[in-house]
Amino acid sequence: MTNSLKVAIAGLGTVGVGVVKILESHKDLIAARCGRPIEIVAVSASNRARDRGVDISGYQWFDNALDFAEQDNIDLVVELIGGSDGIAKELAQQSLEAGKSFVTANKALIAHHGASLATTAQEAGVALRYEAAVAGGIPIIKAVGEGLAANKMNLIYGILNGTCNYILTQMESTGQGFGDVLAEAQRLGYAEADPTFDVDGIDTAHKLAILSSVAFGTETDFNSIYVEGIRRIEAVDIEYAREIGYRIKLLGLARLGSNGLEQRVHPAMVKLEEPIAQVEDAFNAVVAEGDFIDRTFYQGRGAGEGPTASAVVADIIDIARGHMDAPFFVPASELVKAEPVPMDDHEGAFYIRLHVQERPGVIADITSVLKDRNVSLDVMLQKGHELDGSVYVILVTHVTRENIIMGALQEIAGLSSVQDEPLTIRIENL
Amino acid sequence: MTNSLKVAIAGLGTVGVGVVKILESHKDLIAARCGRPIEIVAVSASNRARDRGVDISGYQWFDNALDFAEQDNIDLVVELIGGSDGIAKELAQQSLEAGKSFVTANKALIAHHGASLATTAQEAGVALRYEAAVAGGIPIIKAVGEGLAANKMNLIYGILNGTCNYILTQMESTGQGFGDVLAEAQRLGYAEADPTFDVDGIDTAHKLAILSSVAFGTETDFNSIYVEGIRRIEAVDIEYAREIGYRIKLLGLARLGSNGLEQRVHPAMVKLEEPIAQVEDAFNAVVAEGDFIDRTFYQGRGAGEGPTASAVVADIIDIARGHMDAPFFVPASELVKAEPVPMDDHEGAFYIRLHVQERPGVIADITSVLKDRNVSLDVMLQKGHELDGSVYVILVTHVTRENIIMGALQEIAGLSSVQDEPLTIRIENL
Repeated sequence: MTNSLKVAIAGLGTVGVGVVKILESHKDLIAARCGRPIEIVAVSASNRARDRGVDISGYQWFDNALDFAEQDNIDLVVELIGGSDGIAKELAQQSLEAGKSFVTANKALIAHHGASLATTAQEAGVALRYEAAVAGGIPIIKAVGEGLAANKMNLIYGILNGTCNYILTQMESTGQGFGDVLAEAQRLGYAEADPTFDVDGIDTAHKLAILSSVAFGTETDFNSIYVEGIRRIEAVDIEYAREIGYRIKLLGLARLGSNGLEQRVHPAMVKLEEPIAQVEDAFNAVVAEGDFIDRTFYQGRGAGEGPTASAVVADIIDIARGHMDAPFFVPASELVKAEPVPMDDHEGAFYIRLHVQERPGVIADITSVLKDRNVSLDVMLQKGHELDGSVYVILVTHVTRENIIMGALQEIAGLSSVQDEPLTIRIENL
Repeated sequence: MTNSLKVAIAGLGTVGVGVVKILESHKDLIAARCGRPIEIVAVSASNRARDRGVDISGYQWFDNALDFAEQDNIDLVVELIGGSDGIAKELAQQSLEAGKSFVTANKALIAHHGASLATTAQEAGVALRYEAAVAGGIPIIKAVGEGLAANKMNLIYGILNGTCNYILTQMESTGQGFGDVLAEAQRLGYAEADPTFDVDGIDTAHKLAILSSVAFGTETDFNSIYVEGIRRIEAVDIEYAREIGYRIKLLGLARLGSNGLEQRVHPAMVKLEEPIAQVEDAFNAVVAEGDFIDRTFYQGRGAGEGPTASAVVADIIDIARGHMDAPFFVPASELVKAEPVPMDDHEGAFYIRLHVQERPGVIADITSVLKDRNVSLDVMLQKGHELDGSVYVILVTHVTRENIIMGALQEIAGLSSVQDEPLTIRIENL
C-alpha cells in the first residue's frame, strides 16, 4: 500500500472533533477509497486538557499550530480555527510555503485571501481546498468546480446561512417577530450570542465571494458585495409575501454578465414554487446555472459537526487520491479581476412596506413621489391599524431600477406622515 | 503548456453533437480549467454524411469505432453508441486494454459490466468514467463517490427517468390517463416510439444499479433489482394520492443494511412536502444519505443534449486534470458482492386499488382476506361509480410485509366480484 497521508489538525472544536471521529471510525473505508491510509499525526488547540469525547492521546500535541509548518512528518494541515486573518492566515501561508497541502473550513479566510493563497499553493505545488467553507453539507465547490466544469457559468445563488433560514422559517411558522425568534434561536444554540455575522449577511457574503470565484474564475472580491441582513423583516412582511405567492429568504446571488460581476446578499422574495423557497429550517441550498447544463439545485445541512467535518474529510480524501486541481479550478494567475456591477444598476420589482400616520393625503403624497420617477405599482394596500392611528402601507412595484427606488424611498421617508424608515425587499423572479 | 488530451468520439447523435459543441465552443475555458487543451482527433458514427449542425471535417473519420483502439494518437475514447453489449462493450474492452481512458453515457453497459470493465481499466492504469449515465444534468456520481466520500452511505434514491416523471406530472396536471399522456409525450418527442425501457422501469434500474455501486462499493447487480414500471397507474390513483398528502413518483431506491442490499424500482407514494415529491416534468433528482452528512438532495435535468454532454465533458476534464480514481471509487478487487434483500421482505404501508362489482358482501369478503393475514387498514373508501355498476375500492394499509400483501392480493383477485388485477403502490415514508 502507498504511503499514508499524514494530517495535522489545528482547532478541536465541534468540526475538528468531527474530523477526528470520521478519520478514526472510517479508517479502513477511507483507506480503501483513497488507495492509501489517512493518518492523523498531530493536533493543536487552545486547551489540551478539555474532554472532547474523542481520544487525542495518540497524536502529537502542539501548543502552537504554527509549528506544524516545520514538521517533516506532516503532509497536510487542516485549519479549523477561523477568522480572516491572525493565526489562521499565518498557518495557511506558512503551511503552503512549507509544501504542505492545506484544507480549511474558514470562509472568511478564503473570501478575503483566496486568490493570494491560491498563488502560494500553486507555487509550492500543493493543494488548497475549502469545501467545508460553503454549505458544509453540500459538496457545492466540487459540483461547480468539477461537476459543471464543461459550462460557462451564468448564475449562482443560494441560501447559505442556516441561522437566518431557521429564523425566517420560524417567523413564518410561529408568526413571531425577528427579535423573539432570534432570542429563542440563541437559547437553543442555533444562533450565536453575537449573531451579527449571521443575521447581518456577512457570513453569507463570505460564502458568496467564494462561490463566485469558483463559478466564474474571478478573484474573490468580498468588498464589492452588496450586503443587507434580515433584522428589519417583520411578521407582516412574511405574511404579505405569502399572500402574493412569495417567501422571504436571505439569498446570496452572483451573476457574471457583459456589464460585470453582480454580487449581492439581501432578503429576497422568491416564488413559493421555486425549489429554493421550500428550503426550511437550518438547511442550505444552492442553484447553479451553466450554459449547457441549465439549472442544477443542491440542498443539504448547512453546518453542524457531521456535515462540516464530512466536507473537510472529502477534501483530504481528494488530496490523498492525488487530485491537485488549482484552488479555484483555473491557475491563480488566470483569475480575472471582474468589474463589480454597482447595486444602483440592479433592476427588479420591489416590495415596500411603509409605516404611516393614517391621515388624508398620505397615499397621494406617496404615490406622487413614485409617479414623478415613473415607478408604476403592481399592488398597493393598507394593512392593519395600530392603536396609535398608524397603518402599514404595502406597495409592490413593477420592474424598475435600484437607484430610482432608493431615491423615491428617501423622499418618501422625509414625508411628515411617514414613520420609521421604509423597508424594501427585492422581488427575485429567478 | 502540457500535452493536449486527444479524444475520439464514437456516436454522433444528440449527445455526441453536444460534446463536440462544448469542446469546440469552450476550448479556451476548458484548457484553462485543465491546464492543458482537450482536442477532438477522431469521430465515428453510422452515417458520415448526415448534417449534424457541427463541422466534423477537422477530425479523422472512422467507419468502425473499434479501430480507435489501435490509434496511437488517441488518449481517450468517448462511447455514445449505447446498448449493454455489442459494439459498445467491445469498444470499452478494447479501448481500456489498449491503455486509453474511456468515458461513456451508457447506463446499460455500466449496469451490466461495470465491475469487469473497472478491473480492465485498473489493470491498464487508465480511467473509466460514466457521469452521464445517471441523471445527466446532476453531477451525482462525483457527488457521491467524491463529495460524500467521508461517509458510510446508508441510502440513495431518486427520480432517475425523465420520461416517466414527465408522464406522471402530466397525468396529475391534466387528469388524463397513462395511455393518452404517453401518446402525447411520444408526439412531442419526450418518449420514444418504443417506450418500454423508460415506462417499465428498466432505464431507472440501470441507473440505480450504478448508483448503488458508487454509494456502497458493491458490484453492480442489475439482475437482483426488483423492477416495476408506471403503466398501470391511473388518474384515480394520482388523485387519491394527493387527497392523502402524497404524490406518485417512479423511484429507484437502494439501501445497504445488515440484511443485505435492497434495490428496487417501482411507483411509490411520497409525501407531498418531501423535496423529491416536488420534482416536476422531465427533471431528475437524487437523495443521498451518509452517516455524517445526513441527507443531501440534488436536482437537475435528466437528459437532453446539453446536460448529458456536459456530464461527458466533465469526465473528460477530470481525466485531463489527472484524476485517476478507481471507476467505483474503491479498487475493483474490493467491490463487494452484496446479498440481495428479497422483495418479499420489504416492509411498508400499501395503497391498493381494486375494481369491483358493487354487490352486497364485496367489502366483507375483501376485508376478511386482510383480517386473516393480520393486515390492518388505515383508510378504506369507495370511489366513483362506473356505468357498468363497478366501483373503485381504495385501501391503505398500515405497515406490513410485501409477501403478506401479495398473498392477500392474490386471494382478493380471485374473488368473483373483483375485476381486473388489483393495483398496489408502495407508500414510501422516506
